[in-house]
This record gives sequence, C-alpha cells and structure tokens, in this order.
Amino acid sequence: MISLKKPSAGIIDPWGSTEIESYERLLEEFGIQPLNGVADKLPHKPSFIRRKIIFGHRDFERIVNAINNKQSFVVMSGIKPSGPLHIGHILTLREMVFFQEMGGTVFYCVADIEAYEDNGISFEESGEIAVDNLADALALGLDPTRAYIYRQSKENDVKDLAFIFARSVTLSTIEAIYGVRHMGLYMSALVQAGDILLPQLKRFGGPKPTLVPVGIDQDPHIRLCRDLAHKFREKFGFILPSATYHKIIRGLDGSPKMSKRNPMSYFTLAEDVESVAYKLRNAFTGGRPTAKEQKELGGEPEKCPIFDLYKFFFIEDDEKLLEIYMKCKNGEILCGEDKAFAIEVVTSFIKEHQRKKQSLIDKSRAILSLD
Amino acid sequence: MISLKKPSAGIIDPWGSTEIESYERLLEEFGIQPLNGVADKLPHKPSFIRRKIIFGHRDFERIVNAINNKQSFVVMSGIKPSGPLHIGHILTLREMVFFQEMGGTVFYCVADIEAYEDNGISFEESGEIAVDNLADALALGLDPTRAYIYRQSKENDVKDLAFIFARSVTLSTIEAIYGVRHMGLYMSALVQAGDILLPQLKRFGGPKPTLVPVGIDQDPHIRLCRDLAHKFREKFGFILPSATYHKIIRGLDGSPKMSKRNPMSYFTLAEDVESVAYKLRNAFTGGRPTAKEQKELGGEPEKCPIFDLYKFFFIEDDEKLLEIYMKCKNGEILCGEDKAFAIEVVTSFIKEHQRKKQSLIDKSRAILSLD
Repeated sequence: MISLKKPSAGIIDPWGSTEIESYERLLEEFGIQPLNGVADKLPHKPSFIRRKIIFGHRDFERIVNAINNKQSFVVMSGIKPSGPLHIGHILTLREMVFFQEMGGTVFYCVADIEAYEDNGISFEESGEIAVDNLADALALGLDPTRAYIYRQSKENDVKDLAFIFARSVTLSTIEAIYGVRHMGLYMSALVQAGDILLPQLKRFGGPKPTLVPVGIDQDPHIRLCRDLAHKFREKFGFILPSATYHKIIRGLDGSPKMSKRNPMSYFTLAEDVESVAYKLRNAFTGGRPTAKEQKELGGEPEKCPIFDLYKFFFIEDDEKLLEIYMKCKNGEILCGEDKAFAIEVVTSFIKEHQRKKQSLIDKSRAILSLD
Repeated sequence: MISLKKPSAGIIDPWGSTEIESYERLLEEFGIQPLNGVADKLPHKPSFIRRKIIFGHRDFERIVNAINNKQSFVVMSGIKPSGPLHIGHILTLREMVFFQEMGGTVFYCVADIEAYEDNGISFEESGEIAVDNLADALALGLDPTRAYIYRQSKENDVKDLAFIFARSVTLSTIEAIYGVRHMGLYMSALVQAGDILLPQLKRFGGPKPTLVPVGIDQDPHIRLCRDLAHKFREKFGFILPSATYHKIIRGLDGSPKMSKRNPMSYFTLAEDVESVAYKLRNAFTGGRPTAKEQKELGGEPEKCPIFDLYKFFFIEDDEKLLEIYMKCKNGEILCGEDKAFAIEVVTSFIKEHQRKKQSLIDKSRAILSLD
C-alpha cells in the first residue's frame, strides 16, 4: 500500500514524500519484478544486493547478460543539484560505481532543469551545486574516464528528445502519472525521458542496454520513459531501458523518508561532523521505553533508523551486521551504546569522505566546464 | 460571439477552426483595443490598415511611437512550415514587410517545432517547406539584410526560454487557454512565447518594443506571452510585446475560414494557375439566385469571398475598390463577369509571384543554411 501526500491515491510521487508500506504490494501493483534469481547470476553481489535493498527491477536480465557476456551497456542516473547530497544519495552513487566496475559506461546527468522547475534554482546556482555533488561522486569511486557527465540545460539532444516525445504524451497520461502539476514539472519529466534514452542515440553508438538504478519513488519516470522508448522504437531503434529499484531509507527521526523539510531526519555528505553526531545522538531507534524492558524484550532493529544506516551503508560485512542485529534483538546492547558506535563509524566515514572530496573539487569543476 | 469546433466554449483555438461572428464582441471580451485613432498617427497607411482589415491591437501605440521617433523596434512573426503558403498568408507577410519599411527589424521564425507537434512533420521535411515559404516572403519584399531568420528547432535560446517560462504556467492556465491538448502543443505554445521574446534578449541588444502582427485566432499565444513577459519582467527586463490583429478571410466556398481540409476554400502561392482559376470560377459569391434578381436587387459584396480577395489583397486603390463595390451593389455587374476579372487579376499576380520566387529559392536555402 502506498500512502501519499500530494497527488491522488495510487500515484507514486517522485517530487513529494511517498511512504511505502509494503514493497511486496508495490511489485504486484506496478509490475515490477522481484530481484531474487536474476541477481544470483551476477559475478559479484555487493551488500545492497545481498540484503535486498535493491528489491525489484524491470528487465534487469538484459544488464546481467551484458555483464556476463562482456557486452557494452550503460548505467545512467540523474542527480538533481538542489543542495549538498544527503546520506541517502550514497546508495545511488554506489550503484553507479558498482555497475561501472562491472563494465558499464556511466551517464551522469546533472538534472539542473529539474532543479529549476521543481525548486526554482537558477542555472548559475545549480552549476556550483553540481560541482560539489560531482566531487562527492568522484570521492565515492566514480571513474570519470569511463563516464559521460553533462548538464541537462546544456545538452541539446536531451531537450530535443523532450520536444520529440511530447507529441505522443496526452494530458491525461501525464496527469495520471504525475497528478496536477505545473508545466515545468511535466516538461522536466519529458527531459528525463530524454536523459535516459540519450545514450542510445547514434552519437553514442546507437541502441544499447541501459540501466537506471533508482529509488522506488522514481518509478513514474521509468514507466513514462519505457512507454516513450516503445513508441519511438521504430524511429530510433530504442531498447527499453532497464531499472533496479532500491528501498527508501527512513529518516533518523523515524519518519518514512529523509526529507529536507526536517533537518533532523537526515545529514548531508558536506555536514559538520559535530552536527552529524548530534543528529545521530537524537535519532529515533528501535529501543524500548526503559533499559529494563529492553534487556528483557530486546530491541527492534527492523524499526531502527540507526540499524538502517549500518544495513544500507556502513557495515559491508554480513556477519558483523548479523552480530549487531542479534545483540540488539537479545537485549545485550542498549541504544546509547549502539549510538556511540554509530557516531564513530559514521563520522569517521564523513571525515575521510570530505578529505577525499576536497581534493576532487577542481577536477569536478573542470569536468563540468565550470572553471 | 465565437463559436468553436474543438476546445470548450469561450476559447479561441489557434490550432482549430475558429469562426468569428462579431469582431466588436471580441474586442470587448478579450480586452483588445480598436485600431482607429492609433493608426492615424502612422506616417503611411496601407490598404489593410485603411480598410480595417487590421481591426484591433494591444499596445500598438508603443510601435507607432517608435516609428515616429525613429527608435528601434522589432516586427516578429512565425510561419509554420506545414505546406505551401496559402493566399491568406500574404497578409501577414505584407504586414511584416510594411513594418520593416517603417524601420523595424524583422524576426522571421520558422515554426518547425509547432509543425512537428501540431502536424507531425519531421524537421527534415519542414526544412524543405521552410525554404519554399521563405522564398515567398522574399518575393513579397522581405529584406533579409534587415531580418533575423531562424528555425525554432535550431534556436537554443527559444527552447530555453520555454523551459524557463514553464515553471510559472499552471496546468489550469494552459488548459484554460488552449483546452485539453497533448504535451507537444502545450510545449510549442511555450516555445512561441520564447520566439516573441527572443528579440529582447541581451544577445539582440536587450528589451525593445516588439510587434507581432497576427490573425485574431492567434490571440491565445499573445495573451500567454504577455502574461509571461510580465512574470519575467524583473529577470529579463521584458517590454510587453504589442500585437495587431487582422480579420480572417473567409473561404472561397463561403466557409468562415480557409482550411486545408477543404481545397476549394483556398489556393496556395505555389498552385498551378489553371487550378486557381478553376477554384475562383467555382467560388461562392454574394450574388443572387438569378441574373434577373441580381439586376433588380444588386449583389452583396459584404458576403462575397471574391470581393474579399480584392479588399484584402488585390486592389490597393480605394477608388477602384469602391467602384467595384458600387457596381455590384447596384446590379451593374454580374458574378460571371466579375469572376473573369478576378481570375485575370489573381492569376497574373500568381504568375508574376512564382517567377520572382523561383529566382529566390537558392537565396532562401542559403539563409536557412539548408544548402
């Protein structure tokens, strides 16, 4: 079941806060395939696949086959330059890096048209933000020599694809997918379809398998784009793009999704470590009302944003993760102690990341031709 | 009163067939000013102004003042390359040429995005059509040395303005103006706002008075564009564009508007003169059922498409036009005789035009960089 804030019921809203109550229902309702068996054919499974954080897909077999047959494929994602990346973005970036390591060419899109249409951020301002965001991606291992990195607002082919696609998108289609929005968001949705299909243009060697790793809240864009790829298959020879869907990490405050509206729900990659520590110390947990109860009943790691952080990002070793899980479950460890550990792990990651990133700002600026 | 085919009542439809029953009511309903006094300040009044074929305007004083004070201004229009120009297009082209002669710089837009969105014409195909259309304009006196001539699909600033404007256009606004249409037409409407405001960008010397001479059926575009110019005035310094509105010539078959759906209602500038003569010979007129009645009661030139042709395009001399009017009105001339005269006038114009145009095709191709 999906409950929603903005558009009418039954619509996933990529620009709002979508609360996912059951991923299983979602697979059924939207025709997304469970990951299971397909992923087993991968030569290597990172934690976000082993742990079913990526839980579903469309046409992912096509990418797995390309990997196993050493055929060329693309992994593409758009990063909206609306501010410093928050911790949740790490997942998408790691997915891009992983599929790049598996042989994929990365298409990294600075979604500055969306940042303008959705957030009113000017192209000058979003250029600066994009430099910062891209430096994060480089620090996380993105190899720019095997990537095409571009800004939507400067990429004429992407805008032109939007104009070409528009003729076949009725008002009722776009309204059914996105609800009643202003023209800018509709146009930016068409531009995103252009982004996803850009790698398949002649200029980049023509049709090829393309994977878009996204959070489940972005599925409307994937559906629209696959529909357009199908409609324009004859003209461009498009292969329907593939997608993997990851779960949405809950907010540190226990809310269903990290949100800019509530700074206590998330931290950014650029944040002061003191501030990160403060937020972690004050985070919601899966703990019981009293220490006594927790020792008796054990904690509830399934409900715990701190445990989510380990599972999504910070503990790669499955045995280590299981150990924490069991200790919590058995009441052997209390939330205060666990938070102290989390603060150590997270802040040392952040410090190291910021150090690396700092040395990559100039490179990032040069790649985006903003120097 | 405006009666409509496609969108809901009260909307003028620039992409459909709008029947105008009373121009006076239209002035009232949409806040268009009657031409009257403003036009008297022009140093020279061509027949289409003397005869109130241009019957209304928005902010035309600004252009008249620029003309009288020898200040720079722009006259801009978009020609949709969907086929050979029909006789009705002469009016818009003559308006452009007239205001160019009055000192204006022409912006001539090949509306190929609209031709694609509205008519499904590919950019390759519309390029060829545009060459033909522009040669017509040159033959009618357009001076390319004092004009900026461009194709929408190649003009990034125009497309970018559309993206910039989109954020402030709600779905209900665009639906109220244009009715329920596909995304392509909505986007092409925003692109046209970009066309009209293009001459005011820094690149062309910044804000300046801009006149858009249009048929009344294009007023929705003007209203949307003026609204956007107002909203983005602070950012770009836009001066609200001015417009003049001309009447829509009725079809040769007596229908309210020439329409491609009915070839007997119009002829093109590229048409075989035999075919033109055939259509004129079979045209509806303001004549009576019998010659006897016509001699007694006289004809009705107000209802007559043939008389319209004289008035709109082919007889510049007011006394000559009045003479024909009176002879018809008094029953001194019958429709057969008058049609023979019309055929002579029109076909000799067409022949001469085609001769001139033929010699301008290469120039047109070069201007559009399509050689």
